Amino acid sequence: MKKLLSLLLLACTIGASAQDRVENFGMFEIALTGYAAGNPDIDLELSATFTHDKESYTPEGFYDGDGVYKIRFMPPVVGQWRYVTHSNHPDLNGKSGTLTSVASANKGPVRVANVYHFAYSDGAPFRPFGTTLYEWAFQPESKKLETLATLRQAPFNKVRMLAVPPYKQYYVEGANRLTQFPYQGTSRADFDFSRFNPAYFHSLERDVKRLSDLGLQVDLIIFRPYDKGQWGFDTTSDLTNQRFVRHLVARFAAFQNIWWSMANENSYIRHLTDEDFDRYFQIVQKYDPYGHLRSIHNADRIYDYNKPWVTHVSLQYYNAVKVFGVSPLLRDIYRKPIVHDEINYEGNSDSRWGQLSGKELTRRFWIALTGGAYATHGEILDNGWIGGGGHLAGTSPPRIGFLRQIVEAGPSRGLTPIDQAFVMNAAGKAGEYYLYYFGDEQPTEWPFVLPVKELQKGMRFKADIIDTWNMRITPVPGTFELGDATRYTVADKDKKTITLPGRPYMALRIERVGGAPVEKAPGGKPPVLEEEL
Amino acid sequence: MKKLLSLLLLACTIGASAQDRVENFGMFEIALTGYAAGNPDIDLELSATFTHDKESYTPEGFYDGDGVYKIRFMPPVVGQWRYVTHSNHPDLNGKSGTLTSVASANKGPVRVANVYHFAYSDGAPFRPFGTTLYEWAFQPESKKLETLATLRQAPFNKVRMLAVPPYKQYYVEGANRLTQFPYQGTSRADFDFSRFNPAYFHSLERDVKRLSDLGLQVDLIIFRPYDKGQWGFDTTSDLTNQRFVRHLVARFAAFQNIWWSMANENSYIRHLTDEDFDRYFQIVQKYDPYGHLRSIHNADRIYDYNKPWVTHVSLQYYNAVKVFGVSPLLRDIYRKPIVHDEINYEGNSDSRWGQLSGKELTRRFWIALTGGAYATHGEILDNGWIGGGGHLAGTSPPRIGFLRQIVEAGPSRGLTPIDQAFVMNAAGKAGEYYLYYFGDEQPTEWPFVLPVKELQKGMRFKADIIDTWNMRITPVPGTFELGDATRYTVADKDKKTITLPGRPYMALRIERVGGAPVEKAPGGKPPVLEEEL
Repeated sequence: MKKLLSLLLLACTIGASAQDRVENFGMFEIALTGYAAGNPDIDLELSATFTHDKESYTPEGFYDGDGVYKIRFMPPVVGQWRYVTHSNHPDLNGKSGTLTSVASANKGPVRVANVYHFAYSDGAPFRPFGTTLYEWAFQPESKKLETLATLRQAPFNKVRMLAVPPYKQYYVEGANRLTQFPYQGTSRADFDFSRFNPAYFHSLERDVKRLSDLGLQVDLIIFRPYDKGQWGFDTTSDLTNQRFVRHLVARFAAFQNIWWSMANENSYIRHLTDEDFDRYFQIVQKYDPYGHLRSIHNADRIYDYNKPWVTHVSLQYYNAVKVFGVSPLLRDIYRKPIVHDEINYEGNSDSRWGQLSGKELTRRFWIALTGGAYATHGEILDNGWIGGGGHLAGTSPPRIGFLRQIVEAGPSRGLTPIDQAFVMNAAGKAGEYYLYYFGDEQPTEWPFVLPVKELQKGMRFKADIIDTWNMRITPVPGTFELGDATRYTVADKDKKTITLPGRPYMALRIERVGGAPVEKAPGGKPPVLEEEL
Repeated sequence: MKKLLSLLLLACTIGASAQDRVENFGMFEIALTGYAAGNPDIDLELSATFTHDKESYTPEGFYDGDGVYKIRFMPPVVGQWRYVTHSNHPDLNGKSGTLTSVASANKGPVRVANVYHFAYSDGAPFRPFGTTLYEWAFQPESKKLETLATLRQAPFNKVRMLAVPPYKQYYVEGANRLTQFPYQGTSRADFDFSRFNPAYFHSLERDVKRLSDLGLQVDLIIFRPYDKGQWGFDTTSDLTNQRFVRHLVARFAAFQNIWWSMANENSYIRHLTDEDFDRYFQIVQKYDPYGHLRSIHNADRIYDYNKPWVTHVSLQYYNAVKVFGVSPLLRDIYRKPIVHDEINYEGNSDSRWGQLSGKELTRRFWIALTGGAYATHGEILDNGWIGGGGHLAGTSPPRIGFLRQIVEAGPSRGLTPIDQAFVMNAAGKAGEYYLYYFGDEQPTEWPFVLPVKELQKGMRFKADIIDTWNMRITPVPGTFELGDATRYTVADKDKKTITLPGRPYMALRIERVGGAPVEKAPGGKPPVLEEEL
């Protein structure tokens, strides 16, 4: 999971056609010089077509400062690739060469898999257990290193972070004031929104790369509110926004760990409508040759995640993880993976969105996962973590890691809600694996009764009692053997029950250990609801 | 609410241009004869354009048997209307005349109002409290009359019913076997899907009219599964389906009380896809001149209610009313009225969808309504009501009626969730009216603390304790006066609390009685979530 990926950053001189080697899903980079007139961030057209057998990709290039133009490519297939550049400037046009993509441990970008889940390009499942680090890329290097060290030990495999800093007083004055911005200039008075600032992006790229090296996905947030009327990054023109999206795609699409988040709290960017985001989504879709994951995060106007360019749901809706049964509904509404990307934070903030106990945040994670969805962590203790990173002080991370281990050891195709219209707290794989979660309830006994789907008399199961807070898994002695099925359920043949400790935050894991083969019952009912007439 | 509507069914002879009077939103009918060749259900084009000032409507006509062709019109504006017919048959083309639409008590079709709610065309609020009577139109007349007598006393203002009978053994043999079907013929062997059966539709029209006379809306279900492979009504061709939709629209669009439900349990009609339903929706949208409400009811594949031709959500998802907080989410996802059109039924059915207690069905209604949504009743006690109608034996209807009275006496623009991201059980109108519901909880005390939105120090409120099951409203003595507001809430200035009886199914109604005028706080926060950075 956390294998280090080494990206090869290779610069070719103009006209070079040396055969270069790059790992598959690594990054190959063409660097060109020669063009010097006009504003390359506006005037220049630059791309390259990379071809292997019948496959071809045409990423856009970008101006990287100091007279250097770059085109990045992430070879998605092992073998020899040929490329040729295209440009409206003769110096940059028609440059050709080859590269060889070689097999490696790099599993490639994460994709949607099995409708509601994710997998790396090589097919290995990826279960997002993300954390939120909006501003870590804008911190002093010492703080960044502290954050990276924390992440190395933390249970998270995805980081949600802003591509553009929020306006904060400490970014404009004092020791940690920012000196680099996405655009040329350092204040509203002198920002030139027609010229990008390569130094800013070099830093951001390095940070994305460092997360990649730790095996972490980066959910890169393209637009954000939080400007407080100061810098103007949330009120740039549509043309500027479109250029910004294309520039980010040109720079970052060749990073295998990128996910595109069109916005954080979309509707708080008051001058952008859903129709604006439609266009920006489509720009990403058009210019990202690899189809990295695309979503958008809401505030008080939920974007229509049914739209075809949205790959998964990135929802802020606290109620959806406070109670059982909502994630299955969201799955059914969208038929896409559901990621609860903001479920309030563990913390002691003055703001009520940052006042969860570790127990409550952990409970919400379990409700999300046993609803067949995913959730994202965040912590704001003494104002730390979700802003600048640093160290984790909360009590939820180890429990989230414990949950992650359980989920990763579960069904390879992910957790599916089981009998979801009537049983609200169970997911797994019918016939094989069941994860029940009891949340705040404090049951002392659980009758061994399972929904009938995929089950037959004689099948045997083992059970584990999971204390999700104390992180203990206690096997239940013996096994359970199914008796005769009724219309909806099937119980242990001897009506055995499982004794539970009468504490909150308990779960049950039930796994098949033998018995008759799983076969579909003849003339089986539809999976969720029955015809009522 | 239940004013009787008298529809004028007027038949004009060919070429008649007599000035006819019809009540506004009533039904005017042109009847023509003269065409006798071919199959009019397939070959004939017939419509009429009705014009008043700059407004015009062009409903389609239909063949009504016995050589008679009809075009129906529901005048939506008082005044004189002119009409002229259009047909590909000369006998039916170019007939013209006038009619006068006169003011009446008829409030016209129900529309979407205030995004999440409904109102009659005259602006009067309509709060759907429907019931389910899938098959009542296919019962013997004596049973129909019993059902109508029950409905006259019942708390319901909407009936969800099938336009096509489900296949049942008792419809094909015995005293109550059906002799009329939507198409010519009486069995699969001799159904002619190219010819409609006017007698069948005359009966259905009479039933819709009888419900209209009782002030009831009809949610008419166009397609249904439930054919058991017998009659073939669920496997007709796309062309047949399209003709069927147009025929229904031609016949029923001029009934002021019609709502279009494209299907019950859409996905159980296995050979129809969502794309098929897209087309049928668009046919309704195109040919219904008055834009009656349009939705579709799901089974295990939820149709995308975001599509522009869907006016409201008609959802079957039990979990969404078992717990608090889901209806606000659905409102935010769809930004349309949410009607929970199947939430399990009060009953003693062998099937688990029909095993709710009256208490549980009532609880689900309250959860729906205090989530800013609506719900639909159904009963299956000793197999009665949702199939054939007759009498109601359940305990929920009077409680639903009690809830309806409370809701209809509430805010004129409907119930809006209040502080929904953090408070899950309250709806009303911020600053003026709050309805809290406690469901299964058995609180003994409620501190008088309200979400701060629209509130100011000094405002005074009165409160009623509502026992939703025993249908008792108990005023709390005295009034409450708000103290200083905090960031999120404002409490009674003396920290008063309300004593509650420690029983389940309690609610609180809190209404403003005086104090400072409601003004928006300067620089107010967004209504639902706050920026977290």
